[in-house]
Amino acid sequence: MNTANNSTLNVGVFGLGSMGFGMAKSALAAGFTVYGFDPNQDAVQRFVGLEGKHASLDDIAAELDVVVVVVVNAAQTESVLAGNNGIVDRMKPGSTIVACATVPPEFAKQMEALCEARGIHYLDAPISGGSVKAASGQLTIMASGTPQAFDCARPVLDALAEKVFELGNAAGPGSAMKVVNQLLAGVHIAAAAEALTFGISQGIEASDCVDVISQCAGTSWMFENRGPHIAQGDYTPHSSVEIFVKDLGIVSDIARQSRFAAPIAATALQQFIAASGMGLGGEDDSAVAKVYAAQANLTLPEGDDK
Amino acid sequence: MNTANNSTLNVGVFGLGSMGFGMAKSALAAGFTVYGFDPNQDAVQRFVGLEGKHASLDDIAAELDVVVVVVVNAAQTESVLAGNNGIVDRMKPGSTIVACATVPPEFAKQMEALCEARGIHYLDAPISGGSVKAASGQLTIMASGTPQAFDCARPVLDALAEKVFELGNAAGPGSAMKVVNQLLAGVHIAAAAEALTFGISQGIEASDCVDVISQCAGTSWMFENRGPHIAQGDYTPHSSVEIFVKDLGIVSDIARQSRFAAPIAATALQQFIAASGMGLGGEDDSAVAKVYAAQANLTLPEGDDK
Repeated sequence: MNTANNSTLNVGVFGLGSMGFGMAKSALAAGFTVYGFDPNQDAVQRFVGLEGKHASLDDIAAELDVVVVVVVNAAQTESVLAGNNGIVDRMKPGSTIVACATVPPEFAKQMEALCEARGIHYLDAPISGGSVKAASGQLTIMASGTPQAFDCARPVLDALAEKVFELGNAAGPGSAMKVVNQLLAGVHIAAAAEALTFGISQGIEASDCVDVISQCAGTSWMFENRGPHIAQGDYTPHSSVEIFVKDLGIVSDIARQSRFAAPIAATALQQFIAASGMGLGGEDDSAVAKVYAAQANLTLPEGDDK
Repeated sequence: MNTANNSTLNVGVFGLGSMGFGMAKSALAAGFTVYGFDPNQDAVQRFVGLEGKHASLDDIAAELDVVVVVVVNAAQTESVLAGNNGIVDRMKPGSTIVACATVPPEFAKQMEALCEARGIHYLDAPISGGSVKAASGQLTIMASGTPQAFDCARPVLDALAEKVFELGNAAGPGSAMKVVNQLLAGVHIAAAAEALTFGISQGIEASDCVDVISQCAGTSWMFENRGPHIAQGDYTPHSSVEIFVKDLGIVSDIARQSRFAAPIAATALQQFIAASGMGLGGEDDSAVAKVYAAQANLTLPEGDDK
């Protein structure tokens, strides 16, 4: 990658959580001048310690060329863009918002209209790949937006992603594709938990199950990624149970409005709701296995530290 | 592979369907003398045309060293082994049955006992990988059985499989692992159908969905394998809807007996039952997408020949 010219581009990253922090690091590594923003000042200070920048929005908003918004949901996205201290009114015309949260497609269209009314480009750009790929600039981005939005965001997209899918010339299709991905991701995590605990009920060790099924037709990206968390009893949150209460909730809301019956997604959602109801909302999403274990009186593998 | 000594081993293959025919071919390619058996005489004649052999059971059963049983279910397995024309009573002591159908672990234990009472070894050896890998000798086999059963079956297993998992020294664990795999496989096929049709309801072309999701965290082996069937409108049966009515039925039966609540598998089973109820039982299992399409008044992609 030619990073020589990137230093002239000012990039803002809003949200320095597990995904956003890695993406801000990837942008730094590509040579951009990167400003990080997060309500958590510890995260901001960690980023500044890596040669990242921070400034008050009043001072810097008008200087930002591309703003990447990597927050949890639609409400936080709207707050960053158009809240009391919102950035859109302060950004310069022709600058670009890259919105990465998983949101309903209709919300993405509303945000695009709000930005365009102020001369700001909006790229509907949800991400997939997890925190490790975020930090190595190897995400997959499912993007849609105007050609101008793509043109302005391009150098930043190239720094963050291994693969950028261009799904249409307006906001909406990017978020729709991400919602379809989250339907599958959520179902596959819950199915992995169901299968591993069912295996335990039949006398199969979870670690054997992970080893064998990973090489069989029953495998999935999520089975291979989350299965070891269950087999090792490690529920350190990489992505939490609450994320799938939210994302499968978005799937269910959209499906209901569209009169589309999605019984498997609806069932998986109930399992994540049950996990949250058990007090596990902040644990890794693989903790949905504890719902199955509780309902079958099974003992899950324990981690080394227990 | 050293095939020089394999020609002295007589192998019988019972069941020349999409999996068994390919496995019989793989055994031929490894140099064994292979006898094929199937109620469908066309399949037998096709096999004989490939240098395979066929003979009456009365003439050949006592000469077979290893018998591979690749039929649809437990009832057919029992019929081959112990029915009116059953082989176990005619095989020589020390010969070995390799049983590949997906069956309940308890059934596998019963068949092992039946064989052992007659001095025949029994390997509980369900398979995964599909018809293409069956024909290329690259299956995954989930096996359990006595060391003697493994020893006798070893040259044949090596010819059929890329990977043989040894899961225990008696029948049962092999079938249990296969049932866990089928839980995931069935859920993933139905989830792929749910996701692709949900995407269509949101304006996403199924082929775009297959291309994008295959590179995202929502992917699965089944999504990548069956998704293109739906995107191309090709429901030529590689594995039929009825197979998953059966296999998720086995999962549900075992789970209920074990007092294990498996709500996602139970929901996926209902979708395959609905597909069969619509008259699609003989179509490819990806035809479960037609249940979703019918319930949402959607049009699925059509194949080239329609």
